Amino acid sequence: MRECFEVRDTDVGGRIGELTVPRADVTVETPALLPVINPNLDTIAPRRLATEFGAEILITNSYIIHGTDDVREQALEDGLHDLLDFPGAIMTDSGSFQLSEYGEIDVTTEEILEFQHAIGSDIATPVDIPTPPDVSRERAEDELATTQERLELADEIDTGEMLVSAPVQGSTYPDLREAAGRHADGTDLDVFPVGAVVPLMNDYRYDDMIDAVAAAKRGLGADAPVHLFGAGHPMMFALAAAMGCDLFDSAAYALYARDDRYLTVRGTRHLEDLDYLPCSCPVCTAHSPADLRALPDDEREEALAAHNLHVTFEEIRRIKQAIRAGNLLELVEQRARAHPTMLDGYRTLLDHAAQLERADPVSKGAFFYTSHESARRPEVLRHHQHLDRLSVPDSLFLTEGSSARGDEFDDSWRVKPPFGPFPRALSKSYPLTAEAPDRTDRAALEAAADGVTRLVESNPETEVTLGHKGWPAGVLETLPEEVALVDLTADRT
Amino acid sequence: MRECFEVRDTDVGGRIGELTVPRADVTVETPALLPVINPNLDTIAPRRLATEFGAEILITNSYIIHGTDDVREQALEDGLHDLLDFPGAIMTDSGSFQLSEYGEIDVTTEEILEFQHAIGSDIATPVDIPTPPDVSRERAEDELATTQERLELADEIDTGEMLVSAPVQGSTYPDLREAAGRHADGTDLDVFPVGAVVPLMNDYRYDDMIDAVAAAKRGLGADAPVHLFGAGHPMMFALAAAMGCDLFDSAAYALYARDDRYLTVRGTRHLEDLDYLPCSCPVCTAHSPADLRALPDDEREEALAAHNLHVTFEEIRRIKQAIRAGNLLELVEQRARAHPTMLDGYRTLLDHAAQLERADPVSKGAFFYTSHESARRPEVLRHHQHLDRLSVPDSLFLTEGSSARGDEFDDSWRVKPPFGPFPRALSKSYPLTAEAPDRTDRAALEAAADGVTRLVESNPETEVTLGHKGWPAGVLETLPEEVALVDLTADRT
Repeated sequence: MRECFEVRDTDVGGRIGELTVPRADVTVETPALLPVINPNLDTIAPRRLATEFGAEILITNSYIIHGTDDVREQALEDGLHDLLDFPGAIMTDSGSFQLSEYGEIDVTTEEILEFQHAIGSDIATPVDIPTPPDVSRERAEDELATTQERLELADEIDTGEMLVSAPVQGSTYPDLREAAGRHADGTDLDVFPVGAVVPLMNDYRYDDMIDAVAAAKRGLGADAPVHLFGAGHPMMFALAAAMGCDLFDSAAYALYARDDRYLTVRGTRHLEDLDYLPCSCPVCTAHSPADLRALPDDEREEALAAHNLHVTFEEIRRIKQAIRAGNLLELVEQRARAHPTMLDGYRTLLDHAAQLERADPVSKGAFFYTSHESARRPEVLRHHQHLDRLSVPDSLFLTEGSSARGDEFDDSWRVKPPFGPFPRALSKSYPLTAEAPDRTDRAALEAAADGVTRLVESNPETEVTLGHKGWPAGVLETLPEEVALVDLTADRT
Repeated sequence: MRECFEVRDTDVGGRIGELTVPRADVTVETPALLPVINPNLDTIAPRRLATEFGAEILITNSYIIHGTDDVREQALEDGLHDLLDFPGAIMTDSGSFQLSEYGEIDVTTEEILEFQHAIGSDIATPVDIPTPPDVSRERAEDELATTQERLELADEIDTGEMLVSAPVQGSTYPDLREAAGRHADGTDLDVFPVGAVVPLMNDYRYDDMIDAVAAAKRGLGADAPVHLFGAGHPMMFALAAAMGCDLFDSAAYALYARDDRYLTVRGTRHLEDLDYLPCSCPVCTAHSPADLRALPDDEREEALAAHNLHVTFEEIRRIKQAIRAGNLLELVEQRARAHPTMLDGYRTLLDHAAQLERADPVSKGAFFYTSHESARRPEVLRHHQHLDRLSVPDSLFLTEGSSARGDEFDDSWRVKPPFGPFPRALSKSYPLTAEAPDRTDRAALEAAADGVTRLVESNPETEVTLGHKGWPAGVLETLPEEVALVDLTADRT
C-alpha cells in the first residue's frame, strides 16, 4: 500500500480516498479539487478558498515564483503558506507547462525540486515533458524516455517529507501511457498526474482523454492517487472520476471569469447570453444576470469566479456522495448528455468495462437502467462472466414471464434485460434488482441475448428454451440455433 | 388570444409566457412555481418566498381557510394578501383535493367561488372531481360530466377581475382528457390545471403523466396556460415543461423537509444518507450534513425547506434559460437519466414528437445528439416530412462522404445521421448543423435510413445510390430494394 494514499470507498473506477500530506500535516479527501493560484494575481484569495469553499489543497506554479524576483525572495523568506496565506496543502507545478508552451525553460529538475522544497511546497513536481496528442510514435517514445529519466532523478533526490509527483506521459499511444504508468508506479514517488491531456480537453476529445487515463491506470497500481492535470471543467469531473481520477485542478474558474464565462455542469455559458442564472449558489441567489453585467469589471470577475468555484466544488461533493451511495454511473449517465463529445467519452468509458469491473463493488444500493449505454455497464459484464460458473440442469426454461412450466423443464430461470438469465434465487441480489424502464430498448435485449448465448455455450449439454416478450427478430437471430423460442406475448393474444 | 396569457418564447412544447393576474396587478412569468402555503402553518413565511426566493405567485387552500373559524374571519376581514403577507399573486384551491381524499366536502362550487372572491383570491378554482387513474371508463365519463357542469357554472358566475381555473380531468383515458381540454378551452375560464396527476407521480408513472398532459394539450389551445396540478418534484419539471406545462406547485418543499428529505434534480435523498451536500445553495454552503442533522427539529425543517425551495426555483430558472437558448430537450435528456421511470417519461414524450413539432421553432442555436432517444426528436421528424417537398434529379448520390462523384450522378446530397439525406446547400441550416458523437449508434443510423426511404418513396423515378460508412446489415435491410449501396469504409481499405 502506498503510504500517503488510502482508498476508503469505491464505485466503478471512482474512489473516495485520503491523501496524507505530511509536510502540511493535512489529510486531503479525494476526489479533490485544487484551485490554481497565480502567485502574481489571485481572483479569490487563498484564505477565502479554504474558509468559504472548503478547499483543502491548492496548486500554484513554482516556476513563476522562481522567475519573479520579489515573489521568489518572499517565498524563500516566509515560505509558500505565509506568502499565499493558505492553511491547507499546497502543490506546486514545475514549469513543464511553460516548457510545452514556449519550448524551453531555464531550470532543471534538480534545481526546481530543490526550490520547491526551499519555499515549503507540500507536493512538488519534476520537469517532465508534456508530449502533445497525435505526435509521431518516435517523438512520444523519446520524450517519455526523458520524462522517465527525470522521474528517476527526482526519486533519488532527498526531498524530506515533501511529496513528489510523477507525471505519466505517452501522448495518444495507450501502450506508452500504460508503460509510463507502470514505470512511475515503480518509483517511490507519490502522486501521479496524467499529463498533457489539456489539448484533448480543449478539443472536446473526451473519448481520447478516457483512453489515456484508462491506459495510465492499467500501469499504475490501484493504490496510486491519480491527478488529471489541467482538468478544470466540472462537466467532465464525474466521467473522469469514474475512470479513476482522484485529483483535479481548476484554473478555469478564474480564467473563464475573466472572459465573463459562467461554468455549469451542462457546459459553459457567456454571461451576456444568460437571461436567468441556472444556479442557486450565494452569488446567483443574490444577483440577476443584469445585476452581474452591471458590476464594475473587477467585481464582476470576482463574482463570476466565486460562482465558478461554487459549481465546481458542488460537483466534487456530488461525485463523493455518488461514490458513497454507489450511483456514480447514474451521475455519469446524466453528465454524458451535456455534449455529444461527452457521450463519446462515456461510450469510451464503457469500452473499458472489464477494467472497471475489477474495482467495482459487488453490491450497491440500486442499478438504474437509464439509457442504451446502461446495457454496457460493468455489472452486466460481470453477470455474464458469472454465468459460466452456475450449475445448470438438463433442460432449462429461461423466461421473462412468471410461469415456471415445471412439468416441461427441470428448472426455470428468470430472464431480465440487460442481464439475461439467472436462477430465481438470485432475484434479490445486486445488480439483478435493477430498475429498468417499462419501454425497454434494443440494447437491453441484445445484452440479455448475449447472456443467454453465454449460458448456452458454456452448457452445451443443456436443452434451453427461451420465453421472451416479443424480442425483435434481429435480436433473436444472435442466439445459438439450438435455443428453442417461445414468444410469450403471442401466447397471450 | 386568451387575454391573460401571452407566449413570449417557445422550445419544443415548452414556452416562456406572461400570465397577467389583474386582481393582483401582477404579471407572472411562466414556467412558474407556486409554493403551496398551508394557511395554518408556514415553514417558510410567504414574504420570504417573495424576497429571498423570487416567488411571484403562491397557492393556498380556500377550503381549509373556509373551514377554520379564526382564519376564515381574518381572511374575510383583512383579505388573503394581508393574512399571508404576500405581495405577489395568490391562487386558491377549492377543496377538490379533500373531496378526492375524504369522499365529500361541505361546500358547492358557487359557495367556494364566492368565498374565494370574498377573501381576495387572484385565481380561484371551482370544485371539480379529481378522477383517479385507471378507473372504469364509465366512472371517468360520469365524473368528467360533473366537472364540466361545474366549469360551466363557474363560467356563468360574475367573478370580476378574479381569474378562474378550469381543471382538465379524464383519468387515464387520453380521448377523455382531450375532450375535457377542448371543453375547458371553450369556456371563458382562464387557467387550465391538468388534474389528478398526483397519483401518477406518486407511482413514478411519468409515461402516463406525459400521455395525460399531451392529450389535454391537444384539446386546449396553444394559448392556454397549463398548470400541472400537484407537481412539486423538480426532477420532472423539465420533462413536463417540454410537454407544455406552464405552472407547477410545490408542497413537496415543505412536506419533504418535515421528513428530513432533501430534494435534488436527480431524486430525493434522506438527510441521514447524505455524507456530502450536492448543492451550493446558501443553506448547503453554510452547513455540512452533520451540521444540519444537529439542528433542533424546527430549524432543521426550515433549513431543509429552504434548500428544497432553492433547488426547485433553480430548476425553474434553468428551464427558462433552456427555453430561451433553445436547448430544453438537451436538459430533458439529462433529467431523463435520473430514474428509469423518467426515461419512460422521455420516451413517451418522443411518442408525441409530431404534436410537439408543430410548436417547435424552425431554427435554434444547436442540436446536440446525446442519446439514442435524440434520433426521435421533433427536428428529425420535421426533416423527414420536408424531404417530400425537395426537388430531386434523375440520379442522385446520397453520401456520408465528401466526394460528390459528379461524373456518375446528376447530383450529390449529404447523408447525416439521424436526419438522413439533404442537399448540400442546407448544410448550414438548423438542425442539420447538429453535433453528434463520433461513435454513432444504431438509432441514429435507423433514423437516417428512414429519411432515405422517405426520399426514395416520394421520388420513385429517381435512381438513388447510398454511400454509407459501414452501416450494419439490419439497418440497410430497412431501405427500399432499389437503393444501390456503396460502403465507403470498404472503399478505403
